Amino acid sequence: MRALTLNCTLKSSPEVSNTEALAKVLMATFEQQGVETEMLRVADFRIHPGVSSDEGDGDEWPQIRSRILNAEILVMASPTWLGQPSSIAKRVLERMDAMLSETDADQRPVTYNRVAGVVVTGNEDGAHHVISEISGALVDIGFTVPGQSWTYWNAGPGPGKSYLNTAHGHDWSHRAARLAAGNLVAVARALTKAPIPPPSQ
Amino acid sequence: MRALTLNCTLKSSPEVSNTEALAKVLMATFEQQGVETEMLRVADFRIHPGVSSDEGDGDEWPQIRSRILNAEILVMASPTWLGQPSSIAKRVLERMDAMLSETDADQRPVTYNRVAGVVVTGNEDGAHHVISEISGALVDIGFTVPGQSWTYWNAGPGPGKSYLNTAHGHDWSHRAARLAAGNLVAVARALTKAPIPPPSQ
Amino acid sequence: MRALTLNCTLKSSPEVSNTEALAKVLMATFEQQGVETEMLRVADFRIHPGVSSDEGDGDEWPQIRSRILNAEILVMASPTWLGQPSSIAKRVLERMDAMLSETDADQRPVTYNRVAGVVVTGNEDGAHHVISEISGALVDIGFTVPGQSWTYWNAGPGPGKSYLNTAHGHDWSHRAARLAAGNLVAVARALTKAPIPPPSQ
Amino acid sequence: MRALTLNCTLKSSPEVSNTEALAKVLMATFEQQGVETEMLRVADFRIHPGVSSDEGDGDEWPQIRSRILNAEILVMASPTWLGQPSSIAKRVLERMDAMLSETDADQRPVTYNRVAGVVVTGNEDGAHHVISEISGALVDIGFTVPGQSWTYWNAGPGPGKSYLNTAHGHDWSHRAARLAAGNLVAVARALTKAPIPPPSQ
Repeated sequence: MRALTLNCTLKSSPEVSNTEALAKVLMATFEQQGVETEMLRVADFRIHPGVSSDEGDGDEWPQIRSRILNAEILVMASPTWLGQPSSIAKRVLERMDAMLSETDADQRPVTYNRVAGVVVTGNEDGAHHVISEISGALVDIGFTVPGQSWTYWNAGPGPGKSYLNTAHGHDWSHRAARLAAGNLVAVARALTKAPIPPPSQ
Repeated sequence: MRALTLNCTLKSSPEVSNTEALAKVLMATFEQQGVETEMLRVADFRIHPGVSSDEGDGDEWPQIRSRILNAEILVMASPTWLGQPSSIAKRVLERMDAMLSETDADQRPVTYNRVAGVVVTGNEDGAHHVISEISGALVDIGFTVPGQSWTYWNAGPGPGKSYLNTAHGHDWSHRAARLAAGNLVAVARALTKAPIPPPSQ
Repeated sequence: MRALTLNCTLKSSPEVSNTEALAKVLMATFEQQGVETEMLRVADFRIHPGVSSDEGDGDEWPQIRSRILNAEILVMASPTWLGQPSSIAKRVLERMDAMLSETDADQRPVTYNRVAGVVVTGNEDGAHHVISEISGALVDIGFTVPGQSWTYWNAGPGPGKSYLNTAHGHDWSHRAARLAAGNLVAVARALTKAPIPPPSQ
Repeated sequence: MRALTLNCTLKSSPEVSNTEALAKVLMATFEQQGVETEMLRVADFRIHPGVSSDEGDGDEWPQIRSRILNAEILVMASPTWLGQPSSIAKRVLERMDAMLSETDADQRPVTYNRVAGVVVTGNEDGAHHVISEISGALVDIGFTVPGQSWTYWNAGPGPGKSYLNTAHGHDWSHRAARLAAGNLVAVARALTKAPIPPPSQ
């Protein structure tokens, strides 16, 4: 079983990413449970705007897409800006829109029997909404979202510290991260044993 | 296996409900798959505002709550007003907030290993957002939301006909309803065979 | 000039409301600027579900409605549950839906040239989304939403203290409240001097 | 008085944009009212991810930013993907985040006394939410959003035709566009005559 985390921070490597730091807590739990992990920073790739699986002209989305389809567990990790997901998280979801019409050899949508969770950091309020926006889009595309499969960190009210600048609230966010990782693995395993069948027509 | 639909229309019985009519398409699929079904119209109950499981003073929420916990599948059905879920859908979610701290004999949240889907009708645009709001809240509470576990009907742009006043688009909405019902049953069965374990502490 | 605050807490009087406490900061600024203020706790009224201006049978919405139309400034104040507006805030917006088709003697929608702001408290993250949901609905109905016409209080991550149980962050929330009140008064005055004309057909 | 429309379609020029076509209806009304208009297609510019006003290294955001600040009226025009604003609309809002701390010579936020509206097209449901997301972010940044300052076009249920492939519903969308343009001009003029003052400290 494999878990892929897409870090949708606005910052390219090697800049420090708060979102990456919190996502690593899920990754550690995945590994303890025997799940292989991979984390990509989407800002390091050149992802063209569009809603097809390959926009050509140097588009690096196909690399991301193949890694998504190689994993049973997807974690979308996003910072919060203006209380909303990052433009890079939105770009990823838009490109995944193409998966709506892609099926496997059994005519099953390629996203079926995959699970997804969300990690959010921010220097201000907004995490619940970021989670709902990303989860809602992923359910639309065909991913299953397990109960309590997310974690977040922010400290309000108003703009303030970033996750890595303080230890405040880390305990809660890490506990939620471990719970989320466990639920993701459990539902992914359940769907491996008893998969959603291809849609009957 | 049992499926409960909560119809969150603003109209009490016996007024005609468009939302009920579309929800029945899922119910029919559930029954074809051997799942027992029940549909309640929440407006027929007196549900007090609050975030506990029993607000006393004639509160009829405990009746709804026990039926939710008696079913493996929950379908929230809501009309669309101002592009958002109905106040009755919101009331139901608020009352379910209490489930966040309720566990079974194994210390497992009472909502775990239950799945949820959404049905939306409207005389105007808004369904995707209604679905994301309701799904997001249910995932927060602990329900698992299978991929493509929803359907909707509306016809834009601007305010217009209601679902029962036209045959326009019924084919699409019914096909999505059958797909949603099938996915809900498949994931509910998978979680029965291989349940999410209690959170480890 | 008059400002009406609708406190959409789930708690009836005389229970203590955090949302009311923060809303009072705006009210104080309104009064300093010579604006008459009124605050109603919606949970103290019996507001039937529906989308008309009078649902009959003891419906007390008409009292609220007349006070909304008697004020140039509306402040919607809501707690945060599951990262979303309260069911009572949703009920208010639904009932205001009827205003979409109500016009004054000049054929101008009754909501035009009125301004609206939002106050949010919560024991968890969600304020930005509550603000967007309420503001979006009010703009749809015809209210003008001035820039930075809201404030909020919460302290994360995860569920925690309530506004009245701590002094943490009050400075920021009060400063934002005073700014919001000033902006609401300024735009309300501008629209009194130079009103939006009736729609030309 | 000047109105700037930012077309946030995913398609670069000279590809045909449905969103541009609907936005032109507002532009025509602006011009009839003596307002100078300009429309930019954001996909034609190289806008780096980030939350500052100039990310360097060939970043073309400064050109867009100066045109925003040169206009009293901003129209954000976005397609709908997965029921949400485009990643390009999100990128624009993120870059405008920097305006939160930029003030004019009077210590007034640079966005004050500017108004904003929204145009949305889609081949599926989602417009109300796109409008709320964009409006909510713009109010946060300091723009005033007049009542009924938006229009949209889509036709459901399910994915279907695009705006330019049909005449269905154009009447409604154009009428709403003219109303929106009139309201934007009226409130922009009111704020020119009686501006929001600098925040008092």
